[in-house]
Amino acid sequence: MTNPSDHPARLGALRAELHRRGLDGLLVPRGDAFLGEYVPDSAERLAWLTGFTGSAGLALVLRERAFLFVDGRYTTQAERETDPALWQLRHLIEQPPAETLRGEPRETRVGYDPWLHTEPAIEKLATSGVELVALDSNPIDAVWTGRPAPPAGPAVPHPTAFAGVESAAKREAAAKLLRDAGEDATVLADPHSVAWLLNMRGGDLAFTPLALAQALLRADGTVELFLDPARADAALRAHLGNAVALRPPGELGAALDGLAGAKLRLDPDVTPAWIARRLRAAGAEVVGGEDPCRMPRACKNPTEQDGARAAHKRDAVALARLLAWFSRVPREGLTEMGAAAKLVALRGEGAHFVAESFPAIAGAGEHGAIVHYRATPETDRAIHPDEVFLLDSGAQYRDGTTDVTRTLWTGPGAAPAELRERYTRVLQGHLALAATRFPEGVAGPHLDAIARRALWAAGLDYDHGTGHGIGSFLSVHEGPAGISRSAKPVPLKAGMILSDEPGFYEPGAYGIRIENLLLVRPAAGRPGQRKPFLEFEVLTRAPYERALIAVEMLSPAERAQVDAYHARVLAEVGPAVDGATRAWLEGACAPL
Amino acid sequence: MTNPSDHPARLGALRAELHRRGLDGLLVPRGDAFLGEYVPDSAERLAWLTGFTGSAGLALVLRERAFLFVDGRYTTQAERETDPALWQLRHLIEQPPAETLRGEPRETRVGYDPWLHTEPAIEKLATSGVELVALDSNPIDAVWTGRPAPPAGPAVPHPTAFAGVESAAKREAAAKLLRDAGEDATVLADPHSVAWLLNMRGGDLAFTPLALAQALLRADGTVELFLDPARADAALRAHLGNAVALRPPGELGAALDGLAGAKLRLDPDVTPAWIARRLRAAGAEVVGGEDPCRMPRACKNPTEQDGARAAHKRDAVALARLLAWFSRVPREGLTEMGAAAKLVALRGEGAHFVAESFPAIAGAGEHGAIVHYRATPETDRAIHPDEVFLLDSGAQYRDGTTDVTRTLWTGPGAAPAELRERYTRVLQGHLALAATRFPEGVAGPHLDAIARRALWAAGLDYDHGTGHGIGSFLSVHEGPAGISRSAKPVPLKAGMILSDEPGFYEPGAYGIRIENLLLVRPAAGRPGQRKPFLEFEVLTRAPYERALIAVEMLSPAERAQVDAYHARVLAEVGPAVDGATRAWLEGACAPL
Repeated sequence: MTNPSDHPARLGALRAELHRRGLDGLLVPRGDAFLGEYVPDSAERLAWLTGFTGSAGLALVLRERAFLFVDGRYTTQAERETDPALWQLRHLIEQPPAETLRGEPRETRVGYDPWLHTEPAIEKLATSGVELVALDSNPIDAVWTGRPAPPAGPAVPHPTAFAGVESAAKREAAAKLLRDAGEDATVLADPHSVAWLLNMRGGDLAFTPLALAQALLRADGTVELFLDPARADAALRAHLGNAVALRPPGELGAALDGLAGAKLRLDPDVTPAWIARRLRAAGAEVVGGEDPCRMPRACKNPTEQDGARAAHKRDAVALARLLAWFSRVPREGLTEMGAAAKLVALRGEGAHFVAESFPAIAGAGEHGAIVHYRATPETDRAIHPDEVFLLDSGAQYRDGTTDVTRTLWTGPGAAPAELRERYTRVLQGHLALAATRFPEGVAGPHLDAIARRALWAAGLDYDHGTGHGIGSFLSVHEGPAGISRSAKPVPLKAGMILSDEPGFYEPGAYGIRIENLLLVRPAAGRPGQRKPFLEFEVLTRAPYERALIAVEMLSPAERAQVDAYHARVLAEVGPAVDGATRAWLEGACAPL
Repeated sequence: MTNPSDHPARLGALRAELHRRGLDGLLVPRGDAFLGEYVPDSAERLAWLTGFTGSAGLALVLRERAFLFVDGRYTTQAERETDPALWQLRHLIEQPPAETLRGEPRETRVGYDPWLHTEPAIEKLATSGVELVALDSNPIDAVWTGRPAPPAGPAVPHPTAFAGVESAAKREAAAKLLRDAGEDATVLADPHSVAWLLNMRGGDLAFTPLALAQALLRADGTVELFLDPARADAALRAHLGNAVALRPPGELGAALDGLAGAKLRLDPDVTPAWIARRLRAAGAEVVGGEDPCRMPRACKNPTEQDGARAAHKRDAVALARLLAWFSRVPREGLTEMGAAAKLVALRGEGAHFVAESFPAIAGAGEHGAIVHYRATPETDRAIHPDEVFLLDSGAQYRDGTTDVTRTLWTGPGAAPAELRERYTRVLQGHLALAATRFPEGVAGPHLDAIARRALWAAGLDYDHGTGHGIGSFLSVHEGPAGISRSAKPVPLKAGMILSDEPGFYEPGAYGIRIENLLLVRPAAGRPGQRKPFLEFEVLTRAPYERALIAVEMLSPAERAQVDAYHARVLAEVGPAVDGATRAWLEGACAPL
């Protein structure tokens, strides 16, 4: 799909198609109609057209020129993957597409597929002044020969043993939110919400266990699920029950047409413009509002919390085996991809394992400084002695999703003092956040600085957020809460799972990141306490890198926090691993 | 003005006036046309009508009922000051006025004075559905007999020796901001901006050295200043120069009428609705944008920074004398007001002293738990042995504005362990914030938690912001930056002065607050630093209360921070005080 020699012909074919349709240009976003982070191969229009395979980007094809907009994470990758004779690279944030469009004549007709953009996104582009033309069909689909078939595998029930709450109860609770707001229905455009609401999963994507589907939820708790009926077997149909009608995706438009006079809630951030417009054209009243599944999905129920704990223990067994193996395996022939593959194999031996939750980031030496590095056969690199190896990976288990980063010193020599100092500052921030208790109402942007303060004291920082939400056997990146200055100030609530992953990156040399997942839970009351407080339960169980800790920099409280954590890792993981791993774990978890 | 027996008659007279004008109701906010925190006696319409003297509130007078809306700070005070037979009290935030209006018939005609409300505030009230009627004159003024005369004292130059930058240079810089935005002019509705821009001060308010005036700034740097010419003597006229035209305030409307076709920037947060509407009616194009003086005013120039340092040293001398006196004065006969008056007298002996910067909060015992307590002859209370005394006060010096809080243990007994623990947690937060280095781009809401973390760990908190901006011989509360979760995320910039004042309050028992002022300054680079960092310079010089510090709770770094601060206080203040004060200071500043 990314053979560079194909791209001139593809761009030429697309321009001919645009000319045939009377268009001067076309917007090609990375997302599909489900607007998620990952898309199936059949929806990789941006990669097919440009060669760029990053998770976010937008192409703008004009008659004479073509632009690819990517953010700072992907500048280098886009340069490597695209043909400069075809594509001018621009910064998605600093040189936004609307600005480029503003330079075009006002009569320029630029097409877009209204399934692939939200209304706010289109409104932003419309400020450019050019004519934006909503298209009935996507021009790329007309010229993409050999396009992979869309996912057609079965959708399956997500058993209550893992989901914790029956779909009927979830549907009633979500429907009540609509009734309380005086609304008649909502379109769940985000397949994560459909999956959560109906306790349904699937295999449409490599890293997120979704069946890509949208649904109409009515205020009486009934649902129309738009999913190819051929993908639903008898077990799923029985699971969905009578209150959920199964309809082919192509019938969504007709269903919306039947909603004249109804008041519909749409979440503007996750809903394709096509849906809002069709509803208005049908005579429905559209009101903006949060997807009613978004917050209950983020706040894991007790069964999901227990599942997360269990999944993390299994994940910890695999990780301990990997780390123990890594400590003794000969360095010769060991590569980034080899280490990552070994970890997948070990995870696969655990119960309920389904897949990785994202492409592992296994970065040795200078590769560790590339925050979104992905080792490929072209970039794969030997792991040398006496360097830093950053391993950020996770798994989808049926009872929970994991995401963990450890930064290792490959030895056998001692780590340089400056490196140890920086690792320790990252660790201090990571520990400080995990140990913070806070009252209800506090949001991620208010806590972000706590994880950075030790680095800031030395004039250091990292250019990414401190934490993201994680789903329950769903996406490894889940809203609405996040721990970063730029995140929306959504108050943290009990049941949310968030990552705690400060880092430090020395370009061209190494990367440090330490990541645990944290479960938000109510804190026990203290004397004099007058309002509810929350705290974090650490879910991840893996030792930190002793060779990189400058113990003398830690306060007594920090040292005690590490020792207590290590004692817990040893107590919980030790009994579940082989003797060699256990021996290694005992050393790794000994008091500092 | 607040004789309770007058209020029924006043409300009756107002209702008769409203009836005469065909109105069913009237909105009476606390602010005047300058929309500031303090108003002159002539503008105390809310207090005249209701008896309520707090700094924020809104009355809604209807035919049969009347409401007074105040926020949580003022609930108790409003209950004490108003007649429940006349006024129903409501919570300004939780039961907002628009909600009460929503319960009235849609044909209800409620008047408001468009000089006293911003457009966003009126738009919010308009969501209620009743008819809001903009009035040409304020009905209260028609019935207020014996109304005090408006301020008529002279406006005076603020010399460059204190202001640091000539007005001409400030005007050119502000005008350039307008030109760069393609705007022709702006109305400076906020008298703080007028004072800053023209290097002009006055005595219209008790605690802020303002001449209440508005101005029209054009993109060529010329200004029309709307101030009674009788208030400007030859010195001020010479100071203002030819580029500043002096016009009576009543001519502002005519000046706006002359702006047909011009593009005007108005800051929606500080501009009365009257001004925006008059401009639109005149055919001007009104665009929203920040008051161009707001950010440069907040970022003090080097002269203002030096002035702040000098003012704080003088203030520290007065405070050290007060504290030393307090340590030895017999407790008999000592009251809150007595201690506060003593401090004012001592401050008055310092150079450049003009006035207090706000009404001192001198709260002994249970009064300390009332965050906005103001001792009056009715509430004044003896200060007893072995209790907590909270003293929050500040001064206006021509070279700088101060604001400092110390919490004292009156002795002679030892303070209870729980009290010491809580004081120490407040101190830990106060120290942590002051010691934080942070990269450019970080805003107050991101730092607030750092000052709370030690309290949060014990399930404790305080229900106010951690810090506010402070002017340079201007308001003790100055935007746009603040350190609180609810503050706008305005990145902190070098030259800003902010308070650092965490606290803890035990209702009915005591209050703890520790406040220093911090100057934001560039931090020296560190090895490996790749972007600019900022840090805080502590301006305030006063010892903490040793009797309340639980030394064993402090980390070595915290202890060193206190010791270094105390050493600095002694070194800088000690040489400037009398022998008795110096002896006390040596004890107060000895290493912990």
